[in-house]
Amino acid sequence: MKAFHLTKFGIDGLTQVEVPDVKPGRGQVLIKMRAWSLNYRDYLVVRGVYAPKLKFPFQILSDGVGEIVATGEGVKRVKTGDRVAGAFMQRWIEGEPSMDKSASALGGELPGLAAEYVVLDEEGVVKVPEHLSDEEAATLPCAAVTAWHGLVTSGRLAAGETVLVMGSGGVSIFALQLARMHGARVIATSSSDTKLERLRELGAAETINYKATPNWGAKVRDLTDGKGVDHVVEVGGAGTLGQSFEAVRIGGHIALIGVLSGGAVNTIPILMKNIKVQGIYVGSRAMFEAMNAAITDSGMRPVVDRVFPFAELPAALKHMESGAHFGKIVLKAD
Amino acid sequence: MKAFHLTKFGIDGLTQVEVPDVKPGRGQVLIKMRAWSLNYRDYLVVRGVYAPKLKFPFQILSDGVGEIVATGEGVKRVKTGDRVAGAFMQRWIEGEPSMDKSASALGGELPGLAAEYVVLDEEGVVKVPEHLSDEEAATLPCAAVTAWHGLVTSGRLAAGETVLVMGSGGVSIFALQLARMHGARVIATSSSDTKLERLRELGAAETINYKATPNWGAKVRDLTDGKGVDHVVEVGGAGTLGQSFEAVRIGGHIALIGVLSGGAVNTIPILMKNIKVQGIYVGSRAMFEAMNAAITDSGMRPVVDRVFPFAELPAALKHMESGAHFGKIVLKAD
Amino acid sequence: MKAFHLTKFGIDGLTQVEVPDVKPGRGQVLIKMRAWSLNYRDYLVVRGVYAPKLKFPFQILSDGVGEIVATGEGVKRVKTGDRVAGAFMQRWIEGEPSMDKSASALGGELPGLAAEYVVLDEEGVVKVPEHLSDEEAATLPCAAVTAWHGLVTSGRLAAGETVLVMGSGGVSIFALQLARMHGARVIATSSSDTKLERLRELGAAETINYKATPNWGAKVRDLTDGKGVDHVVEVGGAGTLGQSFEAVRIGGHIALIGVLSGGAVNTIPILMKNIKVQGIYVGSRAMFEAMNAAITDSGMRPVVDRVFPFAELPAALKHMESGAHFGKIVLKAD
Amino acid sequence: MKAFHLTKFGIDGLTQVEVPDVKPGRGQVLIKMRAWSLNYRDYLVVRGVYAPKLKFPFQILSDGVGEIVATGEGVKRVKTGDRVAGAFMQRWIEGEPSMDKSASALGGELPGLAAEYVVLDEEGVVKVPEHLSDEEAATLPCAAVTAWHGLVTSGRLAAGETVLVMGSGGVSIFALQLARMHGARVIATSSSDTKLERLRELGAAETINYKATPNWGAKVRDLTDGKGVDHVVEVGGAGTLGQSFEAVRIGGHIALIGVLSGGAVNTIPILMKNIKVQGIYVGSRAMFEAMNAAITDSGMRPVVDRVFPFAELPAALKHMESGAHFGKIVLKAD
Repeated sequence: MKAFHLTKFGIDGLTQVEVPDVKPGRGQVLIKMRAWSLNYRDYLVVRGVYAPKLKFPFQILSDGVGEIVATGEGVKRVKTGDRVAGAFMQRWIEGEPSMDKSASALGGELPGLAAEYVVLDEEGVVKVPEHLSDEEAATLPCAAVTAWHGLVTSGRLAAGETVLVMGSGGVSIFALQLARMHGARVIATSSSDTKLERLRELGAAETINYKATPNWGAKVRDLTDGKGVDHVVEVGGAGTLGQSFEAVRIGGHIALIGVLSGGAVNTIPILMKNIKVQGIYVGSRAMFEAMNAAITDSGMRPVVDRVFPFAELPAALKHMESGAHFGKIVLKAD
Repeated sequence: MKAFHLTKFGIDGLTQVEVPDVKPGRGQVLIKMRAWSLNYRDYLVVRGVYAPKLKFPFQILSDGVGEIVATGEGVKRVKTGDRVAGAFMQRWIEGEPSMDKSASALGGELPGLAAEYVVLDEEGVVKVPEHLSDEEAATLPCAAVTAWHGLVTSGRLAAGETVLVMGSGGVSIFALQLARMHGARVIATSSSDTKLERLRELGAAETINYKATPNWGAKVRDLTDGKGVDHVVEVGGAGTLGQSFEAVRIGGHIALIGVLSGGAVNTIPILMKNIKVQGIYVGSRAMFEAMNAAITDSGMRPVVDRVFPFAELPAALKHMESGAHFGKIVLKAD
Repeated sequence: MKAFHLTKFGIDGLTQVEVPDVKPGRGQVLIKMRAWSLNYRDYLVVRGVYAPKLKFPFQILSDGVGEIVATGEGVKRVKTGDRVAGAFMQRWIEGEPSMDKSASALGGELPGLAAEYVVLDEEGVVKVPEHLSDEEAATLPCAAVTAWHGLVTSGRLAAGETVLVMGSGGVSIFALQLARMHGARVIATSSSDTKLERLRELGAAETINYKATPNWGAKVRDLTDGKGVDHVVEVGGAGTLGQSFEAVRIGGHIALIGVLSGGAVNTIPILMKNIKVQGIYVGSRAMFEAMNAAITDSGMRPVVDRVFPFAELPAALKHMESGAHFGKIVLKAD
Repeated sequence: MKAFHLTKFGIDGLTQVEVPDVKPGRGQVLIKMRAWSLNYRDYLVVRGVYAPKLKFPFQILSDGVGEIVATGEGVKRVKTGDRVAGAFMQRWIEGEPSMDKSASALGGELPGLAAEYVVLDEEGVVKVPEHLSDEEAATLPCAAVTAWHGLVTSGRLAAGETVLVMGSGGVSIFALQLARMHGARVIATSSSDTKLERLRELGAAETINYKATPNWGAKVRDLTDGKGVDHVVEVGGAGTLGQSFEAVRIGGHIALIGVLSGGAVNTIPILMKNIKVQGIYVGSRAMFEAMNAAITDSGMRPVVDRVFPFAELPAALKHMESGAHFGKIVLKAD
């Protein structure tokens, strides 16, 4: 069968290879993959930033959806024919994170899903909402679970609260959609007026062009009666945290997600404003399942930017590199 | 000015009387009342069930909305012209409940709002959502805050969760609306198919006629893949708790609100199913304010059953006694 | 090897039998048992109250400690030589309870530990604190985890809070010890002045003889400046809940544990006092492990009432039936 | 009466002055001060770092204890003869922090307590534990409440958890004592072996000399089976946060308190380890009162480094500047 392996760092280190077929062992399932989605983390893995000591060849990609076509001995939780996604962390079923759970992430700590067929533990898969296409369902495991963990599990989001989202990447758009699903009011930023228009269509009550308004933190306070937002879904990293501290209310919550830019940050405002900064590194299978129930009930649909054939994975990563996308970049089985 | 005073227990103990004008002292506001709403608690007060040792004459009613027409010395939090409701408990501003806070409820522990003008402490009033009519806004202080406290503050309701509501009283309909506002799935019960139809129009995904299906607890489990609901907004009291224990999932949450029927209950299922039963007696001003932000953002409108002139307060209580209402019974200033 | 099987309901339905040896399969461990403890639930199982449809013969007992003497293929979490207890619910590892987890309790839903050797899944065992004897360690799985779940996981107990415990059974004494470990103030009740004296020695600040003071709820309020306790560890069931409602503060917490007496309860005070009643049915392996860390750090030792030889299991149950015990009744391997 | 006023930035800008007597207005109390304590914040105020736009002359000091010697009209919460401390934030009674509450801190946003007599609102004072001397009680309002907020309110500290404290300042020693009071295990750092010895006497299970072990984060992990601590009471600021990120467990909690050193921090570990960083700026009156109950029950006594006469306030600040202290620096009324 075909797979994509990274043989050296860089997008041109990605090679489509022919690998032996795989078979499910006891407690495992064999999945025929149908669609995958890209995350910025995949790009960092390929570039050698995420795991500089990665051993080659390495099969990439954390996110994908397929159909179970065979099950090993003793499998009870799922069955042949089920359409499932892989859980981002294969061993974070529920409860608190831990070293062992963190060490079980697909496409980084463990090999990824970039192959025609993959074998996963039956505990490491999640049925996806029926109303979603394969391409849509493939967007969920990393970015949507991250947004859910940040706003719902950690943030305990309630209707009437205010949420700041940044830009038009996967996590930000999911955060916007999940916030709206819970009745919250969303303020969105971007450097593109065209993208801001689309964010308004998705339900943002207010938008700010951060190029036109570099001190957007103060603008966010203006838009919230001087008080600041309850939640920030912070994907920008060091480059935006200073403004996020301006934008959040006293006692507010920042879900810290982004690795877009490194660098250092002055932490004094965290203290003076009694801010809660919760680091979010994806989430558990239980969060994924709770989110799927919410997506099913609401009929929510992920925003897919563009679909590439599986064979064009390198081109898809270059599209991500360009930053031109709005929503998730997806691959489809040939 | 005119007021309604209870001079003996029973609806015919209610008399419209002429009382002296009132003036705001330091830190107080004078409110010209525009609308009131009735709660089952008012009916119990009038019947002598709620506070058997009440001293006559007693001015009833916890819920009402009006305009601030004068302010006492030192008032800063609100100003003349503001449209406000009284907070159900005048001294429960925020934080945990306490004996002192519980002893500050209007129309029970303290005299109520059934008068042309009332004086309240500036800390005891709450601005109401602008898009609501006076009649709609008057429905919020007791029933809506109770539903918010039960589902949002205590229940930490999230999208995709399931909520069971009972009947068509004020709290139940607000619970349905607040659950929908947070993206939750609602199962509603009633003994009337006509009312069930209206509950579906308001967003209930499933309805059960509890007369036709006396073992509705099992039916609720059927409608939730055998698992049971995450939350029950329990307004029925002893008459329904047994079925609620059947209906709720293991580890689920019951917001215990109802005093509709007395009697005793077998508590063993609470233990065996790890159920959380949270007693809910209205809530704080902070909850009221958070809820108003949510109502404003969502544009939600309370369901008003019928509006009576203030002078017909006794007739309005008789309408409540009949149980024929769907939503809130409201009074309007003459 | 020897085991105790229940062949019909009643203490005289317990028979010591010779059963075939057992071997650990994949992912399982073989444990040579060293000590066991009795819980009131075991007594209810034997009497036919807990599981009236139990299939005979049935191996009883949820609580026991032993040494791992062999491991099946693939076992990584523990190793030969480890001293472990069985987790009360074999599949409640962490997170929320569920139907499946609840259906995995030893000595009830699953066969119990009353045998010379038992086989458990490697995920279903917990290393016990080193400073405890086998007899002491055997007391932990049901009663101590229940007290921990009630006061720490659900109650979020903090120093300076007040806790009411009832009588001298296993859960109550563990609750007293855990409350003291967290710096809380304990009020204890019993019908025996001798037992009250021992409860004071264990750290109870105040004691009440509930025979001498039948309205002990009011007495508890007196002992807390009229306010009531923050937490009640309620093991009495219907017979004591009414007084517990008197004893608990407004907004307080009742960990509902007891099945000592059936019967029905008036639930109105739950609502009027904003009480949280949390049903507690033992707890997860994660709770057990967190508790063990606390027991190890503090050097806490369980209170063992009396140790019987394994062969005298029926006599030990009769001792429990008498109600004369103070703390845990334990069995020791011959 | 005498008071200390800051007339320009710098310790030599502090002048003992004679000011007119003060009288309590409606709802206020007059307090004859008996003792005060210094916080690093007072030093920053005097140096002009905390509030660069401060208006002179300014009466400093947030922490102090005295006796109520007169009450204004309508005062009910306290009475003449009560021994009280001022609440650090006069308007943060309970609930969440807010801009208005934060703007009510004594000795910074509002004038402080450095005078023979002060007038405070009756809502802004707290009775102190009876077993404490005036000097001991004066240490509580800022440092102890900060430690309580960090470990108990935000951290939900439980027995058996591990806590890292840094150095021998007021907050750190209180954190050590509060952690021990809740049965937690404490690891303490200092650059002085003599101070480490005293920290062990106060209950630290492990100590690390951070000069001898600059990579003390790794050492903390070693002392916790490679896992890291559950809680860090982070008072060092930018200079220590990097090692704190090493020291804390995945999913752990950092109470961010310190302003000892400015500078910038790499935030990537917050995300990758799912860390919760909670900024702590003192706390509410409700936290102060809950802590006092805990201090009373446990008999805990604050560690007083040295007591200066009130007239020697500048010398006391210089002692703080030297960094030689262990515990709190206190002033006593002449």
